[in-house]
Amino acid sequence: MESIEEVYDFLENGEKTYLRHLTIDCVIFGYEDKKLKVLLCKWLGGAWGLPGGFIKRTEPITIAASRLLKERTSLDNIFLKQFQLFGDSEYRVNDDKSFYFEGIPKGSWTDARTLSIGYYALIDNSKAKIKKDFFIEDYEWVNIEDVPNNLHFDANEIIDGAFKTLQNQIFIEPIGYELLPEKFTLPEIQTLYETILDKKLNRRHFPAKLLSLGIIEKLDEKRNIGQHRSPFLYKFNKDNYYNALKGKISLAYY
Amino acid sequence: MESIEEVYDFLENGEKTYLRHLTIDCVIFGYEDKKLKVLLCKWLGGAWGLPGGFIKRTEPITIAASRLLKERTSLDNIFLKQFQLFGDSEYRVNDDKSFYFEGIPKGSWTDARTLSIGYYALIDNSKAKIKKDFFIEDYEWVNIEDVPNNLHFDANEIIDGAFKTLQNQIFIEPIGYELLPEKFTLPEIQTLYETILDKKLNRRHFPAKLLSLGIIEKLDEKRNIGQHRSPFLYKFNKDNYYNALKGKISLAYY
Repeated sequence: MESIEEVYDFLENGEKTYLRHLTIDCVIFGYEDKKLKVLLCKWLGGAWGLPGGFIKRTEPITIAASRLLKERTSLDNIFLKQFQLFGDSEYRVNDDKSFYFEGIPKGSWTDARTLSIGYYALIDNSKAKIKKDFFIEDYEWVNIEDVPNNLHFDANEIIDGAFKTLQNQIFIEPIGYELLPEKFTLPEIQTLYETILDKKLNRRHFPAKLLSLGIIEKLDEKRNIGQHRSPFLYKFNKDNYYNALKGKISLAYY
Repeated sequence: MESIEEVYDFLENGEKTYLRHLTIDCVIFGYEDKKLKVLLCKWLGGAWGLPGGFIKRTEPITIAASRLLKERTSLDNIFLKQFQLFGDSEYRVNDDKSFYFEGIPKGSWTDARTLSIGYYALIDNSKAKIKKDFFIEDYEWVNIEDVPNNLHFDANEIIDGAFKTLQNQIFIEPIGYELLPEKFTLPEIQTLYETILDKKLNRRHFPAKLLSLGIIEKLDEKRNIGQHRSPFLYKFNKDNYYNALKGKISLAYY
């Protein structure tokens, strides 16, 4: 929405287009300078929160999540993963706390208990073009450890949930395809995992395991990063990577 | 609901009590005779489906899930895990397909797009006392591989999602506390995992891994199951089990 007129129209007529009681929040992770980042938006009134919005009346929720992400970031064909419906906190059980913005009149269909579906995505953040509008005044990529703890609504809880899910996801699926260059060194992939898990991994066992699973493979090529320092380059084995995603290669402990 | 009068009252006045557009479906897994079972209910009209129901207007969804499970099964204090909001299929985008039962008149607040929150639980199925009522005519514990593929609404999709989540859960957390006796043999815990994963696990590596992680420990006690057959008994190490649940003991492949 670009103008106050559009906002008034949304409050008056929005329920003809959108579903009551449900919104979507998107936690968009990027990776830059060895830091995991999350996209925050400055909403009308000045509070920071997450990009998101309402679902159309007969729109499948997966389509709604992709549409909302595209409207906000211009990013298309991003794999968004649903991770949780938020419906327990005070913002998600009360009729008057879910869609409150200073300056927006009360008394519309949005004054209703609104639960929110959390989606997350890992993207190349250099490619996102964030669109500002009447509700979104500004945006910023913030290091995950620097996210302020006073975000709008329950956005902190939603980010915590997405981050925990992403950390668990690494147990089940390999990651990195979207985040690393085509050829990378072992320290680079290890740093990515360590950044997401927020802990050090064994310098021998970690790459040995990825190699023995066939998920990465060594190239006959080195990168020259200084005198006497030219580590071998590696790449993902695309077949094995996708077989692991599909569960055909087990990453399990048993 | 016990009578047709109660059903008519629900259709006429239910929206004063319940939230429109959202229901909960519970996938209750039990384990018996080396088989993973799922609780199916025979709904009004004769189709089989899942136990569940509507959420109260200001009721946190976690509380709603526990209440619905208790109303149906008399089970209290069961750990239900939310795994997915279903909002994509034809049953979850249309106004007239979500709550259709033969013999129940149309034209009420329930004729609205209704998305469903999937929860699952692992329980000791011998303890569940299933309650029948106007909507639930019968129930049955069905082996997971024998679930008919023509369940009511999208119940098949919801069961598939719960089963996949349970299989993935074993990557992240140990299981078995609710399902095995206090003392068990290595073949017993291996069979439980194999049943859930629907595949054979290595007879040496699997128990060795659980032992090296400290999740199970050997007792100085054997079970006599026949001439020359008296395998050692094991039990869960409660501290390590819960530390693994909390992520303090890593089950990861890296």
